[in-house]
Amino acid sequence: MAAAPRGGKRCQRLEPSLARSVLSEAEAVLFDCDGVLWRGEAAVPGAAEALRLLEAGPGKPRLLCYVTNNSSRTREAYTEKLRRLGFPPAQPRQVFGSAYCAARYLRRALPAKGSEGPAASVYVLGGPALSAELEAAGVSHLGCGPSPAPDSALFGARAPLDPAVRAVLVGYDEHFSYGKLCLALRYLLRGGEEGCLLVGTNRDHRLPLEGGSAVPGTGCLVKAVETAAEREAFIVGKPSRYIFECVANEFNINPARTVMVGDRLDTDILMGNNCGLTTLLTLTGVTTLEEVQGHLESNCPERRNLVPDYYVDSIADLLPALQD
Amino acid sequence: MAAAPRGGKRCQRLEPSLARSVLSEAEAVLFDCDGVLWRGEAAVPGAAEALRLLEAGPGKPRLLCYVTNNSSRTREAYTEKLRRLGFPPAQPRQVFGSAYCAARYLRRALPAKGSEGPAASVYVLGGPALSAELEAAGVSHLGCGPSPAPDSALFGARAPLDPAVRAVLVGYDEHFSYGKLCLALRYLLRGGEEGCLLVGTNRDHRLPLEGGSAVPGTGCLVKAVETAAEREAFIVGKPSRYIFECVANEFNINPARTVMVGDRLDTDILMGNNCGLTTLLTLTGVTTLEEVQGHLESNCPERRNLVPDYYVDSIADLLPALQD
Repeated sequence: MAAAPRGGKRCQRLEPSLARSVLSEAEAVLFDCDGVLWRGEAAVPGAAEALRLLEAGPGKPRLLCYVTNNSSRTREAYTEKLRRLGFPPAQPRQVFGSAYCAARYLRRALPAKGSEGPAASVYVLGGPALSAELEAAGVSHLGCGPSPAPDSALFGARAPLDPAVRAVLVGYDEHFSYGKLCLALRYLLRGGEEGCLLVGTNRDHRLPLEGGSAVPGTGCLVKAVETAAEREAFIVGKPSRYIFECVANEFNINPARTVMVGDRLDTDILMGNNCGLTTLLTLTGVTTLEEVQGHLESNCPERRNLVPDYYVDSIADLLPALQD
Repeated sequence: MAAAPRGGKRCQRLEPSLARSVLSEAEAVLFDCDGVLWRGEAAVPGAAEALRLLEAGPGKPRLLCYVTNNSSRTREAYTEKLRRLGFPPAQPRQVFGSAYCAARYLRRALPAKGSEGPAASVYVLGGPALSAELEAAGVSHLGCGPSPAPDSALFGARAPLDPAVRAVLVGYDEHFSYGKLCLALRYLLRGGEEGCLLVGTNRDHRLPLEGGSAVPGTGCLVKAVETAAEREAFIVGKPSRYIFECVANEFNINPARTVMVGDRLDTDILMGNNCGLTTLLTLTGVTTLEEVQGHLESNCPERRNLVPDYYVDSIADLLPALQD
């Protein structure tokens, strides 16, 4: 792309010779999934082959991990989807979804069960995958699904509160409702900042659908709860460093030898840049080169931080470098 | 209160002698309702008597208006509540609720019915009062109430869109749901900024309940829709000038001879200050003098704009000045 300021990221096209050099240094490669490996149910052509070659590596095998803000699938569901679409086999522990990472965060942040009283519990706005990850982590919660209607005695504005709740967790929730928002606010007001955590899986505004359409993302629901509670949620997903810390703690990887591959500047690339990773943008998802150009020419440090080191049209562009 | 900067608002206590002088100049007095005239179903003691004396005035009778961000009551419902709690009789045209003002805004902002096609229609997130005010204003809309569940073919993510919709209106909606948020986003994306207006009744974060509790305010729902749509709503209620313009257009009042009485700094007082009104804070609602002190001592122009001209503990404190 155009002239870059000295020392800054330049969003350079990752040509095969450069790709060979960048990838030979990489011990770990982290992939966002939707928009990078697949779109909906269709694999990006050549992506599966690129991952197979990448994992084999020139010397020892490289670690591949899957880092996604999607909170509506479990780690197991991701390994199953990778398998179904022809990607190299992955273990659930290679998958860092925001549902798993939220459960991991809450397991550590919530007070341990004392000698008296029940274990701390979580009021969850989310779907079955978020429930499942909390259960797998041993975190007690109140379940998910539809909430009582305004004419019910159990409507959120007046339902009895569970004394064990010490956190509100907001993820993707097709059953999100005003009643749930009421209950979330009541738990947050009762506990105060000390007594009731507010955690969000991510701030994505929208989930793009095939054909250019979109549905509202979890960020809309997090904003609604934050506005009511008048405080900021702790965010688990990209661009938060927390999701990378989960990977780093699990696999003891070196950020300087890690590549983050993603299609979104304000999540994937920003997280990678903030954590000292090498960042690679793919144009198979939601971002155009024109957007990067705007950030690259900006004098605003926040915008400059959205510029990746490299870009490719598709991760299939890595094939020539990997096939040698 | 403490030393005030030259020329700025000072939040001076409105002692009887000062009150006599301020009120003798006032041709119109605008009241916020909840926290000023009543709290829930209980009138503020002495408030009804103060309004009766105020309306009679020393010379000609003064205009009293009721200016409220609450979108869940019609103009008629407010006149009925004023009557029930012993306030002087009011006409519906003296009541400027955000439901009425939103309907008034949309009647003018929506394209007029052309020779072909149906009248422009509104997708409403709100309750029966908002519906009723739209109908009274002759604005076509899709109705209110519960929305189909995620397992329904009519769930917001996939329901057919009504071709006539040219605006999304967000008010207080106990039936707010993810499905409604989906549908709002789909209308806003289809129309673009030109083709589909986004209007919110107000940005209040919470509705305080008796006993210190609260439920989420319309501002939470507006934020959710704005986050999904990635654009700002036009806000009708305080602190927007629009709600005052409705009063001014209806009664041709002079801002310099108008007093705005309210209990909230960021809505009532800010709107009054922005519109050149004399502002009077009452401490019967959500604000303490300590909060005003913080703004008064601040160097930030935005915070200084939240400082009222005067304050009283309760509007009953006006009684001695009015009884002379």
